[in-house]
Amino acid sequence: MSAPPEAERLARVALSRASEPGDLTTASLVEQLGPVGAVDRQLEPKGDSQLHVRLAAVDPAAELERAARLGIRFVVPGDDEWPRQLDDLGTGDVEHLGMGRLPVGLWVRGPLPLTVLGESVAVVGSRSATLYGYDVARELAGAVARAGLAVVSGAAVGIDDAAHRGALGAGGVTVAVLACGPDRAYPAQNADVLRHLWTTASVVSEAPPGSAPTRRRFLARNRLIAGLTRGTVLVEAALRSGALNTATWAELLSRPVMGVPGPVSSAASEGVHERIRSGAATVVTHASHVLEMVGAAGEHLVEVPRAPARPRDRLDEVEQQVLEAVPLVSPARVDSIADMARAHVRVADATLRRLRDLGFVERLPTGWRQSRWHDNAG
Amino acid sequence: MSAPPEAERLARVALSRASEPGDLTTASLVEQLGPVGAVDRQLEPKGDSQLHVRLAAVDPAAELERAARLGIRFVVPGDDEWPRQLDDLGTGDVEHLGMGRLPVGLWVRGPLPLTVLGESVAVVGSRSATLYGYDVARELAGAVARAGLAVVSGAAVGIDDAAHRGALGAGGVTVAVLACGPDRAYPAQNADVLRHLWTTASVVSEAPPGSAPTRRRFLARNRLIAGLTRGTVLVEAALRSGALNTATWAELLSRPVMGVPGPVSSAASEGVHERIRSGAATVVTHASHVLEMVGAAGEHLVEVPRAPARPRDRLDEVEQQVLEAVPLVSPARVDSIADMARAHVRVADATLRRLRDLGFVERLPTGWRQSRWHDNAG
Repeated sequence: MSAPPEAERLARVALSRASEPGDLTTASLVEQLGPVGAVDRQLEPKGDSQLHVRLAAVDPAAELERAARLGIRFVVPGDDEWPRQLDDLGTGDVEHLGMGRLPVGLWVRGPLPLTVLGESVAVVGSRSATLYGYDVARELAGAVARAGLAVVSGAAVGIDDAAHRGALGAGGVTVAVLACGPDRAYPAQNADVLRHLWTTASVVSEAPPGSAPTRRRFLARNRLIAGLTRGTVLVEAALRSGALNTATWAELLSRPVMGVPGPVSSAASEGVHERIRSGAATVVTHASHVLEMVGAAGEHLVEVPRAPARPRDRLDEVEQQVLEAVPLVSPARVDSIADMARAHVRVADATLRRLRDLGFVERLPTGWRQSRWHDNAG
Repeated sequence: MSAPPEAERLARVALSRASEPGDLTTASLVEQLGPVGAVDRQLEPKGDSQLHVRLAAVDPAAELERAARLGIRFVVPGDDEWPRQLDDLGTGDVEHLGMGRLPVGLWVRGPLPLTVLGESVAVVGSRSATLYGYDVARELAGAVARAGLAVVSGAAVGIDDAAHRGALGAGGVTVAVLACGPDRAYPAQNADVLRHLWTTASVVSEAPPGSAPTRRRFLARNRLIAGLTRGTVLVEAALRSGALNTATWAELLSRPVMGVPGPVSSAASEGVHERIRSGAATVVTHASHVLEMVGAAGEHLVEVPRAPARPRDRLDEVEQQVLEAVPLVSPARVDSIADMARAHVRVADATLRRLRDLGFVERLPTGWRQSRWHDNAG
């Protein structure tokens, strides 16, 4: 792919500096007129007055130079590095809380190209994480990273911090997406993680260097976290946690939302449980469940705790027949299993439940399959 | 309803003493020939030999007398006290692990008539409960009992014990269903709870007085717990906990199976999470969720923690319109809400998500409704 013309890149720099992340007007203008056309239109006297004033004040080439001196590059649509999974944000009117659409560009600080996000999972949650949540997030992120996926989070204290540290500790890839400029060490408590990411990973923001974090920018940032990843895992989120907003964006994008349950006595898990109860989020209790949901390769699947295997040769003939008809990977419906096993559907159904209670098969919403790692030679 | 003839009751006593709980042959014979006919058939020389010998040895009138001296009555189909919700076990071939169907009768020790089970919920789980599970089970059972439902459990140590104690502590009704005879204080650790239930509540068993608890009788007992109640709540269950067998019976009976999540790091919650993930169990985190699932009256609903209310008058006009179209109790689908609010479906959908993030509405699998106890005057 050839890089976009320099005039386009400069126009996008100007729009990024002059408008807010997630701004719908700017995004629509870029969609209709292209970035250069959008700038021209806004520089006309009739343009939106605030944007007009701000645009007139920007020197985009100087912006890029200043950014480069901070080790920050500006990635735009058409660049090899542009994360094309974001394009879903630009289709189908994906808007929420008055913002949405494609960012005009992404400011990136760090050596990792954004292409690593092609296979990535967001692990997000409360700032006020419990020790339980922190540990679970760190372990989960570590296992996901070991399986070869990039872990995306927001570099906040609490669950975000645990996610980044878990991935780093596993020798994996992790990327932080910020609400402020990618050069700012915010929050100060996490400055050490951010410094580490600046030099060994990457930090991304829709807001240009120097920008302060605002509520609006946090909300726009959450949409990027959802848009950059194949799915979003909520580890802990109280009832009005910002992480739930990230989950809503993932939902709007039809990307899997996953929730790690916790004690029902813990306020930090209430928001997660609410999303699970509503059907918006799927329960995940192990990294393998996350990999399954985002369609990651099966050979990376980590161990799933299960009841000890029972020797298969203790099964009667019908049970063996039905078990042999149960697929190993993709679940099958009872009627197709019955067909395969040459058994009556009712018999197959009862046998499958019995085999489940014995630990041989498991039921998923889409059907039955053999329990993973069941020692079928047992 | 007139009580069944004495000959029938005596025949059922004989069958209860001579055959195992959940025995399919006995149940089929009773279905086909009635209890008297079943006994007659088995007393013929051609009958099942073991049953024949055992039947010939029973003196049912003496059995009833001995039981009465222990304060134990024998409740049979046709008695006013017979729990008719059990009849679902006798229809549609509800069988599992080689047992099933209606019990020939129930041995009951305690002052409470079994009619209290007409509105009841099973709260079951692991013997090796964690402190977390024990506390949650006790609180949940207490709240369910306060709402007027009987709490049914198996009088085992762990979650069962917590369920009975929680209901008793709340001044509510609770009934134990045993695998051994209703006169036996098994397990010994729970003898004090059983003694309390004998004098103030009721203890039920399909096995006649004096019977020892066996694996088979535990499995048959689990079917009774599921069959006697409107739904089964799993509080903690490891991957091959007997409580999962109770849940399977509830599933076979199309009664709601509910699961209380716990820490994913806790083996005691793994079986619960597995049933939630498979779609067999619904997540419940508060007693109100349980009451909702079993269709208990709404006025008993207990407090649901939620984010603090946000004043409604900060909402814009469209938000107010949509919010007003959202039902208070039964969820409605977005298209019907859009109709009511005279809004485009897409606008209504986006607005509902926004209102959810603001804490005004909640989404259930069947649609949207207003958050309970939201201070709409706020």
